[in-house]
Amino acid sequence: MNEIGSAEELAERRHRLQGLMTADGLQACLITQNVGLYYWSGSMQTGYLFIPAQGEPTYYIRRSLSRAIRESAARTVPLGSFRSFGDALARDYPELFAEGRRPAVGADLDVLPAQTFLRLREAAPNVELLDGSAMMRRVRSVKSAGEIALIETAAQAAAAALELALGRIREGITELEVMTILESEMRRHGHIGLMRMRGYNQEIMTGMVAAGEAAAEPSYFDGPAGGRGLTPAAPQSASRRPIGAGEPILLDIGCCIDGYTIDQTRTAVIGDLDEELLRAYDVSVRILRHVESLLRPGASPESLYAEALRLADEAGLAAHFMGFGEDQVRFLGHGIGLEIDEWPVLARGFADPIEPGVVLAIEPKFTFPGRGVVGIENTYAITADGFRTLTASPERLYRLPIHP
Amino acid sequence: MNEIGSAEELAERRHRLQGLMTADGLQACLITQNVGLYYWSGSMQTGYLFIPAQGEPTYYIRRSLSRAIRESAARTVPLGSFRSFGDALARDYPELFAEGRRPAVGADLDVLPAQTFLRLREAAPNVELLDGSAMMRRVRSVKSAGEIALIETAAQAAAAALELALGRIREGITELEVMTILESEMRRHGHIGLMRMRGYNQEIMTGMVAAGEAAAEPSYFDGPAGGRGLTPAAPQSASRRPIGAGEPILLDIGCCIDGYTIDQTRTAVIGDLDEELLRAYDVSVRILRHVESLLRPGASPESLYAEALRLADEAGLAAHFMGFGEDQVRFLGHGIGLEIDEWPVLARGFADPIEPGVVLAIEPKFTFPGRGVVGIENTYAITADGFRTLTASPERLYRLPIHP
Repeated sequence: MNEIGSAEELAERRHRLQGLMTADGLQACLITQNVGLYYWSGSMQTGYLFIPAQGEPTYYIRRSLSRAIRESAARTVPLGSFRSFGDALARDYPELFAEGRRPAVGADLDVLPAQTFLRLREAAPNVELLDGSAMMRRVRSVKSAGEIALIETAAQAAAAALELALGRIREGITELEVMTILESEMRRHGHIGLMRMRGYNQEIMTGMVAAGEAAAEPSYFDGPAGGRGLTPAAPQSASRRPIGAGEPILLDIGCCIDGYTIDQTRTAVIGDLDEELLRAYDVSVRILRHVESLLRPGASPESLYAEALRLADEAGLAAHFMGFGEDQVRFLGHGIGLEIDEWPVLARGFADPIEPGVVLAIEPKFTFPGRGVVGIENTYAITADGFRTLTASPERLYRLPIHP
Repeated sequence: MNEIGSAEELAERRHRLQGLMTADGLQACLITQNVGLYYWSGSMQTGYLFIPAQGEPTYYIRRSLSRAIRESAARTVPLGSFRSFGDALARDYPELFAEGRRPAVGADLDVLPAQTFLRLREAAPNVELLDGSAMMRRVRSVKSAGEIALIETAAQAAAAALELALGRIREGITELEVMTILESEMRRHGHIGLMRMRGYNQEIMTGMVAAGEAAAEPSYFDGPAGGRGLTPAAPQSASRRPIGAGEPILLDIGCCIDGYTIDQTRTAVIGDLDEELLRAYDVSVRILRHVESLLRPGASPESLYAEALRLADEAGLAAHFMGFGEDQVRFLGHGIGLEIDEWPVLARGFADPIEPGVVLAIEPKFTFPGRGVVGIENTYAITADGFRTLTASPERLYRLPIHP
């Protein structure tokens, strides 16, 4: 097992990216985003990491150079003048530019701001800047044993926090108060304070706690249940609404420790759920069990999603599955690691068979407007012949006592 | 005073943007980023807000439509097919496209991902998509009385949290433990869990607490003191280092309540600071007082920065000012509101005179490698004839008792 951030592990990651570059006809990749920089260099300082299809990368640093030199396994140099970045590349990689060649360079255009993209095109007119984000996401979708071990560390912290919070839930406690208990406990374990998310405009810190009608409110958030949030200026996750007895309490939480993130959901209730919600919860568990029975190398993400849709439909709950009505999301789960919205997505269009090392959060949920959301979510690592569950929390509907 | 999010306040914001569009020869603006969407529509759902230079805006919503309709003061419609977005614009704004005209549309290209920018150009080939981010940032730099009142609400929460945390600092408590106390308390007051930041790759939740050598570690973070952080995967803010007696403890904290953010810094020490650090702290206070004496409508941000540099230099502390050596940042402060890195920046290149309603965080600090960071930071609102301090924490060097 390679140690996270070891020169060997970084070289292996780079070789996988270089293999895809060669297959796709790219001569290099340019990494600009913090998480990508960390993944391929071992350091998360501000700058640009240039990885040629053959040979050694260079990390061009704006700030902090001394910290990048200390942390990075790559050759690390000052960025110097951004406006002559193309000259620096031509100086450092003469073979790529020989005889007036203009190498095709894939960058992480799914996250790089357009303004910087346009400036890069001016600063390096000697390269053809293309979108290389898909190959970066493909490489990152397959985790090493060391990465999976870090996700398990985060899973332990989430489980400890959940147990603590469940013990403190009483009628009348607000969603925000429960969220704060979870956050403090996860922070104590080393949670960095947010779960990194790649999607534009998406924000998630420690997940969400929401109950009853507030949980079922539709939201911009790219997940099956966003929650009401505190105000229209933060329209997602926990609200100040007090939690009542008999309401489904959705605890969709996670944390990021040493860069790696866990994501999990459990449903709780003070007292008992009514029959319809209880049945929907049972269907979510049934879907998870069925998907697990198919979860192994070779399965296609889109087929797992289709199977979940089929079961939801058979149960008469299609309109409630993964959100309600026009606010439904069209996926069952997602890759997870350094970011919470990694590849593959369990959704139409993701047909490539999953491989050992892929880590997936799978989250069947049912939304009932005005009443709440029920469901379950585990994070799994795909193994040589099946899967391993990384989520550490006991898997059940948590029935909490009604206190006098 | 307009109520935040009222139709009147939103119209006033739009008219100011429309004035700048007309002056700059743009026929419309397209807002894509969550904070901008909220500022100009009252809602933060996923979609695109199109604001013509004359007439009424339209909010094209991907998700959640029902929530956007409820919250937004703008005309709100489903986005429909993204690939025919240009057709929707031509249908809704026929006068802009009459006789084959191709209107110039400014978008927030400083934050919009390049991939979406390129897709937008394909989806709306009938518009010329330009960078309109500077005019958006200019409009947002001038706050209404209602916006300033919200920043003061956040300031009260930060002050309460600081007081609580100072009472719990003992030798051996870790930076992370202090940070967690601050976070929990601010969350209780409605902190959304992060301070929004516009800069690419920048992350800040509740600020930073750092002491001694860990505070002085250089970082990628776009501020004078980033801090060590928890690991190279989160290389900024609080670390797990225990705080010792005699070390400067930098409490650079803030929170975001109902969208609006406060930013402030106080320095504390268990016992006493040595003479050199104490003197540097006094110089930071002297700089702040001097800048305050110049702080009124008409002052130019770059001249305030130059004055601060001059005082730091006269005190023989130029090499320590706003970071150390090559890791110094080149500013003294920044606009703040919905985001923490708003305009104007107190830096070279920001020559336009400040206006009433501008809100600035001003943060003179001195870094001593291996020893720590000292400094102070207040947030100010510019008034008709001067300024008002929004930060509520008492302003002093906090000397904490050494417990046996």
